[in-house]
Parts: sequence; structure tokens; C-alpha cells
Amino acid sequence: MAAGTASSAPALDPQLRRRVVVEGVHPEIDCGRFPIKRVVGEEVVVSADVHADGHEVIAAALLHRKRGESGWREVPMAALGNDRWQARFAVGELGEYEYTVEGWIDRFETWRHELSKKFGAGQDVSSELLEGAALLQRLRPERGAQSPSAERSGRDAPPHPDDDILERAAAEMADSGVAMETRVAGALSESLRRTLARRADRRLATRYGHVLRVVAETVRARFGAWYEMFPRSAGTDPSRSATFDEAAGRLPYVASMGFDVLYLPPIHPIGRSFRKGPNNALEAGPHDPGSPWAIGSAEGGHDAVEPGLGTLEDFDRFVEAARRHELEIALDLAYQASPDHPYVAAHPEWFRRRPDGSIKYAENPPKKYQDIYPINFESEAWESLWHELKRVVEFWIGHGVKIFRVDNPHTKPYPFWTWALGEIKRQHPDTIFLSEAFTRPKVMRYLAKCGFSQSYTYFTWRNEKEEITEYFTELTRSDVREYLRPNLFANTPDILHEYLQEGGRPAFQIRLILAATLGANYGIYSGFELAENVAVRPGSEEYLDSEKYQIRPRNFDQPQSLAELIRRVNGIRRDHPALQRDRGLRFHQTDNRQLICYSKRSADGSDLMLMIVNLDPHHMQHGFVRLPLTDWGLGPDAAVEVHDLLWNERYFWRGEWNYVRLDPEARVGHVLHVQLASLPPQDDEAVALT
Amino acid sequence: MAAGTASSAPALDPQLRRRVVVEGVHPEIDCGRFPIKRVVGEEVVVSADVHADGHEVIAAALLHRKRGESGWREVPMAALGNDRWQARFAVGELGEYEYTVEGWIDRFETWRHELSKKFGAGQDVSSELLEGAALLQRLRPERGAQSPSAERSGRDAPPHPDDDILERAAAEMADSGVAMETRVAGALSESLRRTLARRADRRLATRYGHVLRVVAETVRARFGAWYEMFPRSAGTDPSRSATFDEAAGRLPYVASMGFDVLYLPPIHPIGRSFRKGPNNALEAGPHDPGSPWAIGSAEGGHDAVEPGLGTLEDFDRFVEAARRHELEIALDLAYQASPDHPYVAAHPEWFRRRPDGSIKYAENPPKKYQDIYPINFESEAWESLWHELKRVVEFWIGHGVKIFRVDNPHTKPYPFWTWALGEIKRQHPDTIFLSEAFTRPKVMRYLAKCGFSQSYTYFTWRNEKEEITEYFTELTRSDVREYLRPNLFANTPDILHEYLQEGGRPAFQIRLILAATLGANYGIYSGFELAENVAVRPGSEEYLDSEKYQIRPRNFDQPQSLAELIRRVNGIRRDHPALQRDRGLRFHQTDNRQLICYSKRSADGSDLMLMIVNLDPHHMQHGFVRLPLTDWGLGPDAAVEVHDLLWNERYFWRGEWNYVRLDPEARVGHVLHVQLASLPPQDDEAVALT
Repeated sequence: MAAGTASSAPALDPQLRRRVVVEGVHPEIDCGRFPIKRVVGEEVVVSADVHADGHEVIAAALLHRKRGESGWREVPMAALGNDRWQARFAVGELGEYEYTVEGWIDRFETWRHELSKKFGAGQDVSSELLEGAALLQRLRPERGAQSPSAERSGRDAPPHPDDDILERAAAEMADSGVAMETRVAGALSESLRRTLARRADRRLATRYGHVLRVVAETVRARFGAWYEMFPRSAGTDPSRSATFDEAAGRLPYVASMGFDVLYLPPIHPIGRSFRKGPNNALEAGPHDPGSPWAIGSAEGGHDAVEPGLGTLEDFDRFVEAARRHELEIALDLAYQASPDHPYVAAHPEWFRRRPDGSIKYAENPPKKYQDIYPINFESEAWESLWHELKRVVEFWIGHGVKIFRVDNPHTKPYPFWTWALGEIKRQHPDTIFLSEAFTRPKVMRYLAKCGFSQSYTYFTWRNEKEEITEYFTELTRSDVREYLRPNLFANTPDILHEYLQEGGRPAFQIRLILAATLGANYGIYSGFELAENVAVRPGSEEYLDSEKYQIRPRNFDQPQSLAELIRRVNGIRRDHPALQRDRGLRFHQTDNRQLICYSKRSADGSDLMLMIVNLDPHHMQHGFVRLPLTDWGLGPDAAVEVHDLLWNERYFWRGEWNYVRLDPEARVGHVLHVQLASLPPQDDEAVALT
Repeated sequence: MAAGTASSAPALDPQLRRRVVVEGVHPEIDCGRFPIKRVVGEEVVVSADVHADGHEVIAAALLHRKRGESGWREVPMAALGNDRWQARFAVGELGEYEYTVEGWIDRFETWRHELSKKFGAGQDVSSELLEGAALLQRLRPERGAQSPSAERSGRDAPPHPDDDILERAAAEMADSGVAMETRVAGALSESLRRTLARRADRRLATRYGHVLRVVAETVRARFGAWYEMFPRSAGTDPSRSATFDEAAGRLPYVASMGFDVLYLPPIHPIGRSFRKGPNNALEAGPHDPGSPWAIGSAEGGHDAVEPGLGTLEDFDRFVEAARRHELEIALDLAYQASPDHPYVAAHPEWFRRRPDGSIKYAENPPKKYQDIYPINFESEAWESLWHELKRVVEFWIGHGVKIFRVDNPHTKPYPFWTWALGEIKRQHPDTIFLSEAFTRPKVMRYLAKCGFSQSYTYFTWRNEKEEITEYFTELTRSDVREYLRPNLFANTPDILHEYLQEGGRPAFQIRLILAATLGANYGIYSGFELAENVAVRPGSEEYLDSEKYQIRPRNFDQPQSLAELIRRVNGIRRDHPALQRDRGLRFHQTDNRQLICYSKRSADGSDLMLMIVNLDPHHMQHGFVRLPLTDWGLGPDAAVEVHDLLWNERYFWRGEWNYVRLDPEARVGHVLHVQLASLPPQDDEAVALT
């Protein structure tokens, strides 16, 4: 009868029978166009709105898999209320994972709920029991090719032990010879419920429209202390480059401060044409070493080593030596050429040319940079060029380098990075790429979307409480955190902020503590620990006698060195998981705008650190800071013991507001371990900004 | 040379050459899965992030078209700063439009900018001029099949007048015999710039990944005052149904109050089986008329007219009479059946059945609704069923009905609505569907996404200042406003809120003014104007002697009637475009939580209305309200004349804070026209909530 009627109507899309909606899936970046980022061992907490018309019971599952697996793994989602569902999965290995969400109407739970209500209200439920028996019977034969579990395994399902359970339960429910109470008890039993949870009819389930992706990187992508050093300055003679072997002599010093990554500016042969002299002088003297970023000479290009530093073998030895000190080497990836680079002669088509045939140097009118030829990524021969640039990275990977700090990625096409990083990470998922893009916010974010593991930030220019609070709330509590990992450099060879120029040694201490505790990834550039603070001229952020243009041996063994403070800070970072991630960051009130207070907690809540820093390098500041006792599961008058790990002092505080006094002459801040027996869970997924 | 090199490298996806990124397009609902909504004549303001690597000049265009057109219309986008771009287009006709965004690198503007800087710095620019000439020459031949304009017209372009301009400009720029100043002046001329803006090389432009949609509906979808009336009560005899002809006698009364839409509960034959008596009594007496929502009897179903009301011809005449009073008829669409509905016998397969073969009535255990058979949208014969349900709508469209108030759409599958509303609106784009879903927020929103023109809201249960402010900020200043149009009913036959039950006549005045000025769409159910406020029992929102179950002739000619107030309010709404849309709503501070203050402005800023309402129906309330003088382009001490259009009184206010006193015995609120010479533009696109 039904068939006869239906045949008279035009057929409709069978997809219209799927009644459940799956929407609002989080995390999801740009409709799934870009993967989110995690490191190995982390969890992805996935939420979604799953609902349907009517009042039936809904069920939902998170589906996930390593990319390339044919089937899905499944986690039941829990209802959070307001039609929101959540589940989580861990990314256990390097590489790419996929996830999505499926929702369906749970016919058995719906029926069970109705039966329970009616029976509880004293109604006759014999008809309902017959319905339930029929429901169970329907589930039995339909298993096989149609069921989701069979679909996952890709073969016909053999008879399943559940079949018997369903058969017996159906028979009892339909048996009018059995007492009603017994039949209902069987129908409502938890064991039957568990069986049915495995056997839901999901043929009309709704799968979310996008398959979303996660890239799982090494833990070092999330947590590391970087030290930037020009190896050529590692000797004692300012008139010649130190060698890698001499630079290896500095490894114990760097390692002793507790750094994880040793980042080297370009180590390649430096061009001679239009070489810059000290302080960026237009003409170099005959012995001036030139800028390492003017890459390429007769001695080679991006896959060669500057002869002053040694040979490729010397470099390999240096990498090995660093590894013995638990330091990973990060190389600089600066895609540009000096006029003497071998590419220029071999591949003039990779550069832009003037109408007269000469190759264009870099310009920012009216400034001219005649020592640098930008590479033309839009060359007609772009394919050979891009392959060559990728080969350069692979070359250094072959020499033990896993970390690359990429110079000015924002002046190279986004699609180049998407392609090159994608290809490289597929082969070498343990590589890390740091984007050195100091430019507009959307460009910096987009580069992170393209696949960079870490990004330089505006941290260097955020020195006041309000701007630090606002910026780090954006970085750690908006969806930006899903794809952009900040790496906070307190200084760089290009950036000596006015704050450091004017604040003396306390300013360096302040910025060190902020960088190392606001960011799980942070770095300093050599000389920071000596509080080097002389700019080339007033108003400039460039160093005087910048190491970019000359060799600068340093005596690090000075009484005012911050090396001991750095060693302590990095030690605390290694001991405290709270400082090894950025999600747990929260800012707290103080009544003095020169005092900033924030806390970080570990993912499992077992570790809680509280930082209080005096942002004023010149004056003692004091005031009250407000502890978020409620968030910590404590009453407003609770007593808390805090242990300053920098100075090994303990304070016993009571109540929310506590007095703090920080004199930069003595100490610029507290790095406190908050000693609590337990911490209530914090919603790491809560987004403060959208 | 380049070719030789390139051939040695594996080919790459040519799409990788597109350097520009288009992202963050707004408005966009769920990755473009659902259209946004506008009414004919409105604008769509489209914004996007458009950027690329490097420092070249970017250009962007908004592309839009009526659905079905093959080519795109184009509007240049303006840069708002921070890589954000914006443009707008109007939807001039009913139906569906599409839009997307394209961005590209503007080579000519980039070159022009560089030329200007270098020439301004006194550099020799002869090489740049030759480059520019070559750039212009390249644009000439490449026009034709490749150019976007040719692509749009779909044919080879004939020689274009621009060709000559480019040719001459290129020749002059390259002519070393001409003075440099002259050549530069020509290159920088605005006329050349305009020509080039039309001729940009967009072969490597980036088109946004989604084509987004807008549905343009009739203005009535955005703005209308609804009056709900049971036609059977339009007579004087409570023992029999009034006819449509008698009901027509009430049209002048409804029209005189200034309503736009007259909404009728179901007008179909009412079932006899299990008919409910007065006050929802389980057994009806022999003369009880039953509930109009128990649809279907031997006299017919959803396409028939209840004999007590008359015939189909009588209905047609009623629709015509209403039209003469400028009232549009809205019918109720309640997809359910009484046991006597013709569907039950003809199509038992459209209903759910028990194991014993009997058809299931509606239940909410332990409650039973034996007079209602829910329709089984998941019937095996779902296709014939869905077609039939759609036919019902088309039937009434054939009888002049364009507006449908849909009963409980949240108990019918979402895909049914997506399909049915989509199909109907493609044929009849002037139809309006109001979703009567009082349920969870995400379900209400999803129904709006599925295609309903308007939605009932929680307004009825929002009586306090904070909750009104929060709820209407969500409705009017988050992306929800792109697809959900609120229709605020002050009461319905099912909802007599406690506030009305207890607040007396002032409560009705308050809720009327709030509904009519907070919402461009609002409605009342007959009897509201008489302040009918007796519930069936304490704690219930049901009316005593509800019209749902009995015929309730009323004497509307009563001294305490609010008809005159309603007439004035509706008149003000018709005169003031500010009240005809919801986007212009802003809430303002008051120092008394019983005083709510908000303003609305028209899209063009020419009309500004300010409402101040005493939410306390029992007591005089007074206090200060704060005018947003800065937003209005005035200084903090400015004087403002406001004209209370309800009472025709004028106030001269000075400065931000002004005193207001509202005694519910006299008047519950002010509806003020703010008389300003001009109003600065307000960013209608600004989103306060995300």
C-alpha cells in the first residue's frame, strides 16, 4: 500500500531522511581548510551541536583516525547541555590526524525512556513491550553490510554474540506469559542498554560535512628555550671568524643556562659584492665579514658552509656536539641571494630583471639594498625554483637539522609555504619551522595557518600591563591558539627595544621572566644576558656595532651577567609542566598598573605557577594582587602557601588580596609555585575571545 | 632557458601561483551552507580579509548576481585598513542572489606607487618607465578570452577603445626623446589609472572558496504588525461558529488599529473523535466546537474549510475583503490530523501504528492526546507524504494566501522544511513562513536557517531590563540576525504570561510598546487589547475558557480598550522607518532598573526613535536616562528636542543624563522622535556578540 502511494510521487533525495544536524564543530579553522596543531601526546577536545526535531534521544560520536587509515576510531560524545556534545582523543604519533562528528537518533534509548515513563505512571505497557521486541528483532538481521561497524571493517559481519542477547531479550519482552514487571525490568536493564549502545541503527546517521585535520608535531614545537648565537663571534679575535670547532667550545655555556635550542643565523658563504661594513656602512673594508644574510659567494650558496666557519664536516661535528649537550640546532632559512650567489649565474631566470637585463636588487624606495637579490617566486621557472628551495631544507635535514627559523616568510608567497612545509613535514614530521614575520596581524596568522610550527610575535613591543594582558589573552584564549604557537623573543639582532635601552639590567631581568613564563616557547639573542643595550643611534632599535656586520667576541664571564638567573628560570620551566604550555594562562588583578600578575597551570591541574612582575625597571613598586581563590577551588579566606622558586622563599598568604613589594634593585618578580593539594578542572576549551 | 630548467622539475599545481588570500568573508553562515536573509531593496554589506605576501598593492572586488545568471556583476571593494575590505550590493528583486569575493595583485598600481616614490626621491626612473611601458603592452594583447570582462561576456572581445590609450601611454613612457617629467606625469595620470583599473590582469586572481547566498523576501518579512483572531468568534452567539462573512465584519476594526497581517488559526474541518471540551476537558459536549488544531473530519482535511465558517468561496471572499483593508491573511499550517482526517483512511501508512495495527495518538507520558494523530514524516511512504504536505501550501497559495504561521515546526524534520520551503519559495518567492517553535535556542535557530522567514521568540518570557537587553542584543547584534527575524508576540492563545495576569492594564500597555518598538515584526492575539488576563488556574499560562476550545464572542467596544493606543503605536511604526527594521537597535543606560531605554535608527540615519518604558506596571518609577550624544554626533552638553509621538508632547533635553518620570496610571512609556538635523553613520555591520 505504501509502495503504491509512494510510486506516484516524484522521488526525493534519500539524504533528506537524515534528521539529525551536526553543526558548530570546534575546533575548526576556516571551514576545515587548515589543520589545527597539537604535539604528540596532547588531546584534541572536540565539541559540536548535535540535535534533531522532536523529542527523541540523540547520540553522537567523535570519529578520528591517523591520516591514511581507512576506518575511523570512535569515541562516544557526552551531552554538555544546550545541545552541545563533547569528546576527546589523543594524538599519539607524529603526523596528521583527521576527525569529524556523527550524530543519530537513538531509537532504543528513545523507546526505553518512553517505556520507563509510562510504566512509572502505572500505564499498561504491553503494546510498548511488543514494539521494543520488534525494534530488537529489526536490529539483528540488519546488522552486517549495513551496520556502521561492518562498514568500518569492510566485510560481512559473522554472527555476533550480541545477536543471542537481542534474540533472548526480544523473546522475553514479547512473552505475555511472563510477568509485566519482569519483562519491563529486562527491557530496562543496563546490560541490554550497553548491548544496544553498540548496535544502534546508524543508517540514517548524519556525518558532519567536513573532515577536519590536526597536525601532531614534536613536543619541542610547544615548549623550548631558544638561544641565538653567531658562531663566528664565538672566538676571541674580532678580526676573524671563529670556526664551528671554536663555537663548540661555547656549547657548555649555552647548555648550562638550560636552553633547548641553539639557533644560528645563516652559516653560508657571504657575498662580496656591495658587502656592508660595520653599522650597515655602504662600503665594507677588505676584512669586514659582511652580513650572514647576504647569502652566496664563489664558495657556494644555501647548501654550503662559509669557509671561515669551516666545512660541512665541521658543521656535522658541531651538530653532534650540540646534541651531546641536549641542544638542538636551528638553522636560519633566508631565501635571498647576494649578487655572488651561484644561483645568479646558473639561474638568472629565478630573479627579476630590469629592461636592460640586469638583475634587480632589493629596494624600499628610496632605500637600496644592492647586496641582496630577492628571489622571484613568480619566475616563469617557478617550479624548478620551488623544488630547489625545498631541496635546500632537505639538504640540511640530511645533516641533522630539524629546526628552521625562517627569515621574512611574509615576503614569499603563501602557497610556497603551504606546499613546501606540507611536503617536507610529510617526509619529516619531526621538523619545526619558526616564522620570523614581523608584519600585520592577519599576515602573521595566515603564515601560521600555512603550516609554520611557531611564530614570532609582537611580544618585543608589548611592555605595559594592559597591552601584555590583551595580547596574550588573544594568543592563548581565542581560536588563534589552535594554529599559531607564539615564540617570544626578548631581543633579536634586529630588535633592541627602547625599554631595554633605557631600563638597565632590571629591564633585561623583567623581559626575561616575562618571556620565559608567558610563553612556553621563548628565546634570547646572545648578549642579552650581558644586558647589552646600546643602540646604533637614538630612536633606532638596531644595536651599535651590530653583530650582523662584524664579528663580536664577548666575555660572558662577567659579574653582572644574567646567566645564573637564566639558568634558574630555565630550570623552573623544565621542572614545571604549567610553564610548558600556553593554554593554562590567566591574568589576575593587581591594584598597581606596574605590577602584572598571571598564573599558568598544567593540563592535568597538578601544577600551578603564579608570576608577579614589576614592569617598572626604575622604581620599587608595591601593591596588592588578587588570587583567583574561587577558580582554585578555595574559599575567599583560604590560606595558600606559595614558594618563590627563583629565590627559594616561602610566603603564607591568606584571602584574595595579598601584598607584594618588588624593588628592581633586589628582584623584579616572583615566580611562585602555588602549593595546593588539588586543583579543580579548568575548561581549557573555554574561549574568551572570538 | 627558463623553460629548459623548468622542464627538469616535476610539475606543480598551477593553482599555487595564486598569491592572494581571501578569507574571513562576512556575512557567511556555516561556511555558506545557508543563505542570509534580506528583503527587496536592502543592501548586503560584504567584508573580507584580502591580503598577500610582500608589499604589492592589492585590489578586491565583490562579485554578485541573481541566481541563475551566468556572469557576475562586480563592485570594487574599499580597503578599511588591517587588510579588511568592504563593498555592498542591493537585492532589488525577490528570490535568491549569490555573492563572493575576488582579490588580486594590482601590478599597475604597485608599479605606479614605486615610480611615484622613486621619482619623488629624485631617482632616475628611466628603467622604471620602460618597465611600465612593457606592463601596459602586456595588458593589451592579453585582453580577449583571458580577461575577466571577456570571461563575463563569454565571447572574444573586439578591439577596445582602451587599447589605444594603453598603446599611446606605453609609447610615451618608453620615449627617451620626451622629458622625464612629462613621461612620469603621463604614467601617474588619473585617467591612465582609471583605464588600468578596468584592465587589471586577473588571471592569477584568487576567488573565495565559497559562493554565498542571500534570499531576498518581501518587505513584509521584515516589518509587520500581526493580529491573531479566531474567525469563529467574530459573531455574537457563543453557541455557534461565526462565518467568514461575519468575520469580515471585524476587518474594519482590525484595520483601524493599523495591523498589517491578520493571522487565523486553522480554518479546516475539526475532528469529532476525542474532541476536547471547554478548558481542555477530556469530553466535549455535543455542541462544543473543538480545537481548530484537531484538523480533519468527514468534511475534509487540510485543504478544506470548516463548514461552520463557510465554504472555500466564502474564504476567498474574506481574503479579498481583508486585502481591501490592507490586511494580508496568514494561515496556520499545523501538520497533524484528528482521527477523522481523510488521510487516516486513505493513507494509514502516513501515521505510526502500534503492534495491534491501531494508529498512535500523540503522547507526552503520562499525558495522552487522543484527539491528535501526529504525522509520521519518516513513513516508508515519506515521499508521497511530503509532496502532499507541500501541495497543501500550494493549494492555499492558489487561494491568495502568502503568509503561513507554521505550528510546532520543531516536531517535524528539518530536512522537510529545507526541502518544502525551498521548493515553494522558488515558485512563490513572495511567501512568508513564520516558525512557531518555542523550544531550545539551537533548534529555533536551525529552523530559521532551514528557510523560515520569521521566528517566534522568547520575548514573551523576557520581562526584566537585563534579560530584555541581553536577549535583544543577541538577536540584533550577533550573526543570528543574518538568518533569524524575530516576530514578537505579546500573547498567544497558549501564552498568557504571569506578568500580564498580574500587572493589569498597564502591563498590557508596557508589553505592547516593547513588542512594537523592540521588534519590526510583532503581534498580539485578540483579547489583548481588552487586557484579558484570567488564567485557567494559578501557575498556568493557559487562558480560562480558552478560545482554543470554545467560541468566544467579544465586545471590543469597551472604554478600557487599548485599541486607541495600538492604533497610535502602529501609526508611529508606519511613519518611522527606524521602527521598521531591527538592526538599528541600541540600549542605553538608565539609573533605575525598572526603566528601560533604547533607540532605533533607520538604515540611512534620517530617522531616530528613542523609547523609554517603565517595566513596573504597579508603581511610578523615575530616574535618569543617558542619551548616547557622542554616537549621535553631538557634544556632551548638547541640547536635544524629543517629541513623544504617543502623547504629542515635546521635551527639550540638555546633556547626557535626563530625568524621566513614568506613572503607569498615566503613561507607561515614551515613544520619542529625536529631532536631529543629521546623524553620523552607524556601523550596521558591527557585531557586538559572536
